[in-house]
Amino acid sequence: MTAQAFPDWMKAVQASVEEALAAFIPGAETLPAGLHEAMRYAALDGGKRVRPLLVFAAGEVFDADSALLSRAAAAVEMIHAYSLVHDDMPCMDDDALRRGKPTVHVKYDEATALLVGDALQSQAFLLLSEGEGDAARKLGMVRLLAHASGSLGMCGGQAIDLASVGINLSLEELEQMHRLKTGALLRASVLLGAMSGKQIDASETAALDAYARAIGLAFQVVDDVLDATADSATLGKTAGKDAAGNKPTYVSILGLEQSRQLAEKLRNDAHNALAPFKNNAQRLRELADLIVQRKA
Amino acid sequence: MTAQAFPDWMKAVQASVEEALAAFIPGAETLPAGLHEAMRYAALDGGKRVRPLLVFAAGEVFDADSALLSRAAAAVEMIHAYSLVHDDMPCMDDDALRRGKPTVHVKYDEATALLVGDALQSQAFLLLSEGEGDAARKLGMVRLLAHASGSLGMCGGQAIDLASVGINLSLEELEQMHRLKTGALLRASVLLGAMSGKQIDASETAALDAYARAIGLAFQVVDDVLDATADSATLGKTAGKDAAGNKPTYVSILGLEQSRQLAEKLRNDAHNALAPFKNNAQRLRELADLIVQRKA
Repeated sequence: MTAQAFPDWMKAVQASVEEALAAFIPGAETLPAGLHEAMRYAALDGGKRVRPLLVFAAGEVFDADSALLSRAAAAVEMIHAYSLVHDDMPCMDDDALRRGKPTVHVKYDEATALLVGDALQSQAFLLLSEGEGDAARKLGMVRLLAHASGSLGMCGGQAIDLASVGINLSLEELEQMHRLKTGALLRASVLLGAMSGKQIDASETAALDAYARAIGLAFQVVDDVLDATADSATLGKTAGKDAAGNKPTYVSILGLEQSRQLAEKLRNDAHNALAPFKNNAQRLRELADLIVQRKA
Repeated sequence: MTAQAFPDWMKAVQASVEEALAAFIPGAETLPAGLHEAMRYAALDGGKRVRPLLVFAAGEVFDADSALLSRAAAAVEMIHAYSLVHDDMPCMDDDALRRGKPTVHVKYDEATALLVGDALQSQAFLLLSEGEGDAARKLGMVRLLAHASGSLGMCGGQAIDLASVGINLSLEELEQMHRLKTGALLRASVLLGAMSGKQIDASETAALDAYARAIGLAFQVVDDVLDATADSATLGKTAGKDAAGNKPTYVSILGLEQSRQLAEKLRNDAHNALAPFKNNAQRLRELADLIVQRKA
């Protein structure tokens, strides 16, 4: 299973997720055509697909069914895509560029962006509730994704982020904000992948949680480092926004060098958390490395 | 069961839905406090609770479990509440008044309104996936609600509505738009109530569908009549908006008198559809009457 080189495995997963998203979001031949076209614009052909990669990598640990993994990966990516569409709107981050393309409200209009996000969220839950597989386990996956998306997860993190502009957050408060804002969905990705294989027990959940927590924070620390050091063309989105928006970041609190050291420490934490899974967790280890070493 | 007078039954259901919503949306003591407070502002203490009433009325036909009915009713009302919050935003209908109170983006701000809607949608699916009950049936309820909410339901109807401003829709196109925009969620309410009792068969689904379709259209026809004839204070929202916004309505296409006749015809259709359920469907009949005879 791990015979395939990591870059090839990654490309294969990305291609399969692209295919799943294209299949699971109605095309422009289905009414309302304009909304479906905009939903596809928002979700297809974009991003590194970090969350789907985590779904598939965790699925490999538990020898998961690939059809269920595809659904889980597409569902979590739809939630992520909807959150980007809404975050980019003028009343939130007011961003014109995303994944190297005009954002949805720029390409279409604000009302369309609002509906695209709303409909992608519904579609994610529709997806998880359809198809083959044990109903109790799938209901558990709906519950996990809904919890990670809502006020106690991603949306809650966004709310804390909004309220924190111009405020001096402590390192602990910053961590809590990111644990919800991006960490909750990354954790859900890992657990959804595992649950696609079997009902996981408490010690497995704890190990995956520790891994997810480490890569979740690492992801954000590296984001802040890149925001401070890379250019917009490399990132595919507007660089330097956080500093300009007076938002607290790891770089603004810890400085650049200590932020890089923290990311490296979190990578080690992630590797250590995977010890119980031995050789089955190779992809999860490689993803932790990718998250810390990425340049965009 | 139908010994209770309709107004008393209605008040009892409304009180129980209020209680369920208050229990199922975290309070201001749960972080992020501001977001939870705004979610409660959007969902509590408002509206006639037509959708929850339909859930409970359909539940009576099939002797449904009251805990599951409460969850289903609260979930569908959260979807409805989120759609109102987003519809009222400046990029959509730009409305300042809802249920007699300032809309969420006026009371708080646009970013909060966006997050409140997003988080209420997640919460609806969380709710349906939690609690007791048969997993397969509950997964079916998630599927039904997600389908009714998304691009092939409510969001799709909104998109058609947006695209129709200033365009002369035919009566058929207007019907299709409303069948998605408001009809899909009303239909889901009826079916969720029924499914809370048992797995319904195809002929029962067809009868409930015919009922839901009739009251869904009746609801919209009456809305248009009220928008053209009542004042804002009575409606608890801005009256005359559709005419002012150059939106097609039943009144603008059929005129006032024919619109009233259509509503009356649809009420009869709804009653006729319920014939197979005999005396068990008394509450559904009374709700059809309420929807057509309401003054706000």
